[in-house]
Amino acid sequence: MSATIINGKEIAFQIREKLKNEIQTRAITPKLAVILAGHDPASEIYVKNKQKAAAEVGIETVLYRFEDDVNPKELEDLIDALNKDFSVNGILLQLPLPEGIDSSKILNRISPQKDVDGFHPFNMGLLMAGMNGGTVAATPKGILRLLKHAGIELAGKNALVIGRSNIVGKPMAMLLLNEDCTVSVAHSKTKDLKSLCQNADIIVSATGCLKLVQKDFIKDGAVLIDVGICRDENGKLCGDIDFEACLDKASFMTPVPGGVGPMTIAMLLENVLEAYLKQNA
Amino acid sequence: MSATIINGKEIAFQIREKLKNEIQTRAITPKLAVILAGHDPASEIYVKNKQKAAAEVGIETVLYRFEDDVNPKELEDLIDALNKDFSVNGILLQLPLPEGIDSSKILNRISPQKDVDGFHPFNMGLLMAGMNGGTVAATPKGILRLLKHAGIELAGKNALVIGRSNIVGKPMAMLLLNEDCTVSVAHSKTKDLKSLCQNADIIVSATGCLKLVQKDFIKDGAVLIDVGICRDENGKLCGDIDFEACLDKASFMTPVPGGVGPMTIAMLLENVLEAYLKQNA
Repeated sequence: MSATIINGKEIAFQIREKLKNEIQTRAITPKLAVILAGHDPASEIYVKNKQKAAAEVGIETVLYRFEDDVNPKELEDLIDALNKDFSVNGILLQLPLPEGIDSSKILNRISPQKDVDGFHPFNMGLLMAGMNGGTVAATPKGILRLLKHAGIELAGKNALVIGRSNIVGKPMAMLLLNEDCTVSVAHSKTKDLKSLCQNADIIVSATGCLKLVQKDFIKDGAVLIDVGICRDENGKLCGDIDFEACLDKASFMTPVPGGVGPMTIAMLLENVLEAYLKQNA
Repeated sequence: MSATIINGKEIAFQIREKLKNEIQTRAITPKLAVILAGHDPASEIYVKNKQKAAAEVGIETVLYRFEDDVNPKELEDLIDALNKDFSVNGILLQLPLPEGIDSSKILNRISPQKDVDGFHPFNMGLLMAGMNGGTVAATPKGILRLLKHAGIELAGKNALVIGRSNIVGKPMAMLLLNEDCTVSVAHSKTKDLKSLCQNADIIVSATGCLKLVQKDFIKDGAVLIDVGICRDENGKLCGDIDFEACLDKASFMTPVPGGVGPMTIAMLLENVLEAYLKQNA
């Protein structure tokens, strides 16, 4: 038996097509403000990709660029202005910010209604409390969508989330808990990852540690979701999970690349449209 | 070997004494507004106990009473007024509200700065994000204090939280995660509670199910924290955990009554003082 590969690229494409149609049908132009401070090469690429994907579905983006030595006050003033600007539906602050700037202080200044990343504590709290109306971070939201698209039943399943970031691990744990999974969260201080994995029906790994999850770690028929982005010994892009080895033991797997990654951008675009619709309801 | 009993009553007494001294030394009178709607007998007792404990440490309380048929608009208007009233440091909305009233809508109206229960999504989100400055719900905050008071090391330990309420289970999970525990959350849909318990160094049970956690569920030397309030077959007050049976297998245990319960009120009072100090910083 070979695991079913969950094609995130294809599912994300379908979602983007649906968003594009909805935006065209409604004859609207949601607008996303993107703030990029400094010249981190990965951030430059991420921002370019987000802008391109936004344009393709009919979302307008405006890029605000700052140098590495930007004064945090400038970022705050910009955010205050964007919060008040009715033409702006979403504000995306690309992380990481230049060294020495307190990201959480800047992030928390974004109006929760325009926080399309779902990183504002108010949005995190709505998710944690199981209350509607908040914005859910794009990556965990996309993963839940993949699980549901694949028809995987969640209630009562043992789900293990490896990694406890505010961007993936913690919101993922809360989403799975809201779906009635029994949820465990492992991280760098966890002592026996192997036995936790062996007990898990669903593993979401978001660490960036090459081949962290191996074949003898997983149970037969496990669902494996890989959020890691690593390079193997040959420089090939891969994830946290030993993909080839686990293929004949798992029931469902996401590939890297082409699994979770494309879903993140699709969910970000969906969050922008949802923000627009809420603001114009 | 017999487990060490964590004397919550005694520890809570010490905390209340400390709060009383601090309030006297500073010559201040923090003020807590308590809103009670309807005539739920348990709520009446809880409110009375909170008012009594507040008075003992020098916190003034003002009780706002409403009937079962209160119009939610009245509660909202009162909260708006209390939010603006500089003399009020904390607002406590006693739950449950009368049937038909959307508790979360009313709770979310309380200013996060005056939300001494820590139930507002913004405060929950600050906890989830690991950010400082928020208010943590009294029961999980008190449990963490008990664990630390007993000198129990938390980093790297497997912690199991049974129950996923917004008031205990979820914030408890986040607090333990912030302390570097590997955290699992079990609940009514969990399939194999026994094996989860057997793998746990620390169990926090908050379900109200009589003798849910039995001796053969726990590992040798487990730390058992009991948040449950049940009655046994003889009508005697007890918790979720089979206390007598686990005594010679666990390393630390909280009794019911006299364990977590007294800490909840002490932490509420501490939250009121902290709110006062933040508002008057």
